[in-house]
Amino acid sequence: MVDLIKNFKSGPLDVYRKKSTFDWKKLKLFLESEEVIKYENDLYEELQQYSEFRGNNVTVQRTFEEERIVAARQSNLLRNIKLLSLEYTIQNFKFPTTANRIRTQFIPSAAIKFTVSNTLFVNAIYSLGTGRHVKFITDIENGKISGCYCLTEIGHGSNAKGMQTTATYNKERQVFILNSKDFQAAKCWAGGLGQTATHALVYAHLIVNNVNQGLHCFIVPVRDPDTLLAYPGITVGDMGVKIGLNGIDNGFLILNNYEIPRENLLNKLGDITDDGQYVTPFKDKNKRHGAALGTLSGGRVMITAMCEAYCTKALTIALRYAAIRRQFGPTEDNEVSLLEYQTHQYRLFPHLATTYVLRVFSTWLVEALYKFNIETALGSNKDEQAALGMEIHAISSASKAVAGWITKYAIQECRETCGGHGYLKAAGIGSIRDDHDANLTYEGENYVLIQQNSNWLLKLWPLILNKQEISSPLESINFLTEALNILEHSKFNIYNIEEICSPKAIIDIYQWLVCYLLKKTYTSLQDKLTSQSHFWAKSSIQVFKAKNLSTAFIQHLMLQIMLQKINEAPEKPIRDVLLKLFALFGLCSLEGHISTLYEGCFATTPQLATLREEAILMLCSNIKNDAIALIDVIAPPDFILNSVLGSSDGEVYKRLQTAIFSSPQSMSRPSWWEELKPVAKCKL
Amino acid sequence: MVDLIKNFKSGPLDVYRKKSTFDWKKLKLFLESEEVIKYENDLYEELQQYSEFRGNNVTVQRTFEEERIVAARQSNLLRNIKLLSLEYTIQNFKFPTTANRIRTQFIPSAAIKFTVSNTLFVNAIYSLGTGRHVKFITDIENGKISGCYCLTEIGHGSNAKGMQTTATYNKERQVFILNSKDFQAAKCWAGGLGQTATHALVYAHLIVNNVNQGLHCFIVPVRDPDTLLAYPGITVGDMGVKIGLNGIDNGFLILNNYEIPRENLLNKLGDITDDGQYVTPFKDKNKRHGAALGTLSGGRVMITAMCEAYCTKALTIALRYAAIRRQFGPTEDNEVSLLEYQTHQYRLFPHLATTYVLRVFSTWLVEALYKFNIETALGSNKDEQAALGMEIHAISSASKAVAGWITKYAIQECRETCGGHGYLKAAGIGSIRDDHDANLTYEGENYVLIQQNSNWLLKLWPLILNKQEISSPLESINFLTEALNILEHSKFNIYNIEEICSPKAIIDIYQWLVCYLLKKTYTSLQDKLTSQSHFWAKSSIQVFKAKNLSTAFIQHLMLQIMLQKINEAPEKPIRDVLLKLFALFGLCSLEGHISTLYEGCFATTPQLATLREEAILMLCSNIKNDAIALIDVIAPPDFILNSVLGSSDGEVYKRLQTAIFSSPQSMSRPSWWEELKPVAKCKL
Repeated sequence: MVDLIKNFKSGPLDVYRKKSTFDWKKLKLFLESEEVIKYENDLYEELQQYSEFRGNNVTVQRTFEEERIVAARQSNLLRNIKLLSLEYTIQNFKFPTTANRIRTQFIPSAAIKFTVSNTLFVNAIYSLGTGRHVKFITDIENGKISGCYCLTEIGHGSNAKGMQTTATYNKERQVFILNSKDFQAAKCWAGGLGQTATHALVYAHLIVNNVNQGLHCFIVPVRDPDTLLAYPGITVGDMGVKIGLNGIDNGFLILNNYEIPRENLLNKLGDITDDGQYVTPFKDKNKRHGAALGTLSGGRVMITAMCEAYCTKALTIALRYAAIRRQFGPTEDNEVSLLEYQTHQYRLFPHLATTYVLRVFSTWLVEALYKFNIETALGSNKDEQAALGMEIHAISSASKAVAGWITKYAIQECRETCGGHGYLKAAGIGSIRDDHDANLTYEGENYVLIQQNSNWLLKLWPLILNKQEISSPLESINFLTEALNILEHSKFNIYNIEEICSPKAIIDIYQWLVCYLLKKTYTSLQDKLTSQSHFWAKSSIQVFKAKNLSTAFIQHLMLQIMLQKINEAPEKPIRDVLLKLFALFGLCSLEGHISTLYEGCFATTPQLATLREEAILMLCSNIKNDAIALIDVIAPPDFILNSVLGSSDGEVYKRLQTAIFSSPQSMSRPSWWEELKPVAKCKL
Repeated sequence: MVDLIKNFKSGPLDVYRKKSTFDWKKLKLFLESEEVIKYENDLYEELQQYSEFRGNNVTVQRTFEEERIVAARQSNLLRNIKLLSLEYTIQNFKFPTTANRIRTQFIPSAAIKFTVSNTLFVNAIYSLGTGRHVKFITDIENGKISGCYCLTEIGHGSNAKGMQTTATYNKERQVFILNSKDFQAAKCWAGGLGQTATHALVYAHLIVNNVNQGLHCFIVPVRDPDTLLAYPGITVGDMGVKIGLNGIDNGFLILNNYEIPRENLLNKLGDITDDGQYVTPFKDKNKRHGAALGTLSGGRVMITAMCEAYCTKALTIALRYAAIRRQFGPTEDNEVSLLEYQTHQYRLFPHLATTYVLRVFSTWLVEALYKFNIETALGSNKDEQAALGMEIHAISSASKAVAGWITKYAIQECRETCGGHGYLKAAGIGSIRDDHDANLTYEGENYVLIQQNSNWLLKLWPLILNKQEISSPLESINFLTEALNILEHSKFNIYNIEEICSPKAIIDIYQWLVCYLLKKTYTSLQDKLTSQSHFWAKSSIQVFKAKNLSTAFIQHLMLQIMLQKINEAPEKPIRDVLLKLFALFGLCSLEGHISTLYEGCFATTPQLATLREEAILMLCSNIKNDAIALIDVIAPPDFILNSVLGSSDGEVYKRLQTAIFSSPQSMSRPSWWEELKPVAKCKL
């Protein structure tokens, strides 16, 4: 273990490191396994070898142009790193999570650009194309062409069915003629399309013999691979400056009677026969539509994992800074670390707990996705696979949204707890926030996306009323078999802090919440349906009901997965500290449910509110001495963290001084200084 | 009124504008008065005349250097605009609020740079200096010199007493010798110090005859006004790239045996006699310390007002976009505006209500501050002024923090409700968030600052127990005279939605909350004091107690001030719509207090939780048709808003198209395109 996990350099963080109640190396080994830590170490070593990955000077603001060229170079390079290749990472289903995390923390723009231009493009061809499209995959892999994925249009994002791009089949010439109705029908936001893609996967309504057969996916050449100039008949370009992720060239595409050959239709879900007829294995048009968009779950699973990556980075910075930064004290010359303050503990430790829960949960979810994809490729039992696919869709639709939100809060709190110095670019938190911000609205705007989860759950209530057994491949809903029993008998009946922190108490609360909110949401929907159309009834059960239901559902699942992991812990000190994180996450996440707990009479006395507050403060206080060791276990190495406030040596002020002194314009007189000379007051 | 308030250009927003239940021009007139609207119009016209204020192309990312030069030019220009001068704005105490809002919304970096380099510098000399310092004020006003304000050090921000800069008096040579102990003692973050200031107001511990007399303020020349080169003996420079507000040159200053003449001590609070002795009118060193920092309230009041300015801007963008943007619908070809969705209403309308409350409240607070400053200058009754000064300090310490937080949430929700397009720089929300972010940590980190408020309130509890009458100049605490009565008799006893929306019900809830949390916090403090030092006891009553107390206190005050304003409304439609905003703000802000309401047995049945949810949904639904008119009343003109999504003509897609097409690199091949050509796979 000595070779596998290196000690940190001794320094001002030693004080807290020595206080921890557990061996941080043992926890790391338990969380990741020897194989994964070795893989991580190899990848870190590899990444440090390339000049393309260096030179991210924290004190300099790159221009838009520089962001682009750096990300393009890095993205190209990622394709060539064997440790990141699919063949390598599927050796161990924890490798993809690790690789995704490291890429996201290190070079987020390049990581996403690589994924959308390569992985997403290739996966979509695998799942929607046939043998005749293999050449595109080969060309991508050889770097001959570069892809992108065009679904969203200027006027339509969440409502995929509302897309306005059409592909009209011309029987005589055996071509599709693609058109964007107007600017609102322009494809947009596609990563890689802005400046670099040569081929786009374009979703368009397929029109054959004047009949609209719904959305299908086409391979559309957009730029000449030899010159990178756009082909005639299309207008393609860049979306412009964004809040973050400016290395990614998100683009737009307007098609004007643009012809592509018949073979470029990805034809697994529907095809054109030689005599110009449309044929499809799907009788149900809605199911075909669902299948056409079926590859999107993967993105949501990976975003769930990205959230953990960002949380970890932000918490590493904020917690180490909190340990080093001193302010006020019992006497004037005895200032104490911010970590000692109750307020600071409460501001950061719940997010530390969240980070651990997200880490365990997203590892589990990515693993489930990879198993699913491989079973699908192997053609395993179709019914089982369909149920599993649906469950992953429903889980990832909630986890992407909820992980996105809690990560947003975590990053922001980290930024604020670093005080004024946290506002420096060199602190590194601003860019994490800006990059994460996209997660909240792409791959499904969170509030719209999470409805996919409640729709799935709502179908269960009639089965529950029917006393059917409820089960699913990943067992996320199995407890609902007991729903009626839970609603009838489960009550808050706890009178001490220890008990409210117990796994049983916390799981009980969340199970009651899911059952109650499911019933409440379902009943409300039925009620609305007596006077409203289905569309408006659905719309009017979201706030306080469907959204809270899906939130509680995914929180419960995260807790369950965390608990499974804790139960495998090799020794008591590790189990104990993880149980504290479990309890802190569970109790703090109840904040948005207090109203429901009292409204639904789960709690009828003040105890729940009182004990929850006391327990949270006790847990924060108990975690204090472990906080630095806990973050050491999951922190990325300094070259990836790249923050003057968060380095593992704790030398905050030295690094701050170096950063400030070395910023290019730090001490030079501005070239435009003469403009600052006194100007006579104008007569205004 | 037709000339005073112009109609908006007809367009797609007409649909909602026609639906509103009140006359938006009458509401605007009521909120602002004819005089203020005229002033606003004049200022808008004036600002549009200068080329320095133009050219803020939303599609372009300015370089760091460009940000700086633009802000420096704009800041210089602001000094010459007569409508913004103190002499002009004090004609009407609502003018400063208006001027502050417009500057903040239009050119935030320049506005703050101007304020800290000029206003703050001048105000500090007025309040701490004497006749011998008037020349510096004259020089600032004539643009001969440029100032900055140096309090914070690298190692100390919130704990002002912990500053490490010293000014040692040398009797022989009649000079102060200034020293920064080390890099942690470097002055930092001072706006204007980075590249442009010639003179700094430096807070340092004054040491006379080896006795430390505490913090005093000195005028320190840092750069030669003729060459803008730093003087020998100091190291002065720029902090570097920040999350936002990059136009402001925040700087650092290290003093190394740097000598300044005796006269440069601002000597109102303490002075050196000709024979080298320290004299002061303050016997109590703590009071002197308080007086030395007394000018800081002004900054907090203005930040409270800046929050409203940012909220208004973000809400204007998000609400207009929500009205135009359609997605999904009862049938495929009948999509509905996002504004029609319950979720979207709940995500935005509470923040619209907040914006109105902040607008009324901050106008009131700025007016109180100006009256206070003028009375102080006139030398009015010192005891009354001291009580008023303390109340403004306590109120602004809570309002700066709470307004900062709610504005943060509002901006972020606006960003997210704009979906993917909200991630574009051209949407304009990202920069609002980045600029506002500084408000959360400067001029007092929010969590530390808000303790100033609870400290003030906690002193009242013994008086309450003593049945003394509680009162203050601004009457913010007068209701506490009834505290014991409220705690004994006030209970939630409401069974219908209408009643829970009534001002009485809402005010009653908040009054109970303040009383209960005051008692809870006080009792907890006494309890902790039996086993802990005062320092640690204070630290351990913050979470769930002191912070919630101050939050409820300021929410109650905001509601009270809003209600006073509503009671002056000229007609029923206006009163009605404002009452809805009042109720929505009041009920939504209870979210963080639900636990307390049940824990303290104010509510003992599910009704409070149930009715609150139902009432919020009803209010959102009722406000829907007024939302666009409500934002029209307070929205800045398009040239200030500068957002492709939020223009008053509602032409979202046209402006989006223009912005995307006209971005500099939109459709050109990148200069580095050849790098993108296929690279052979390396053997890694």
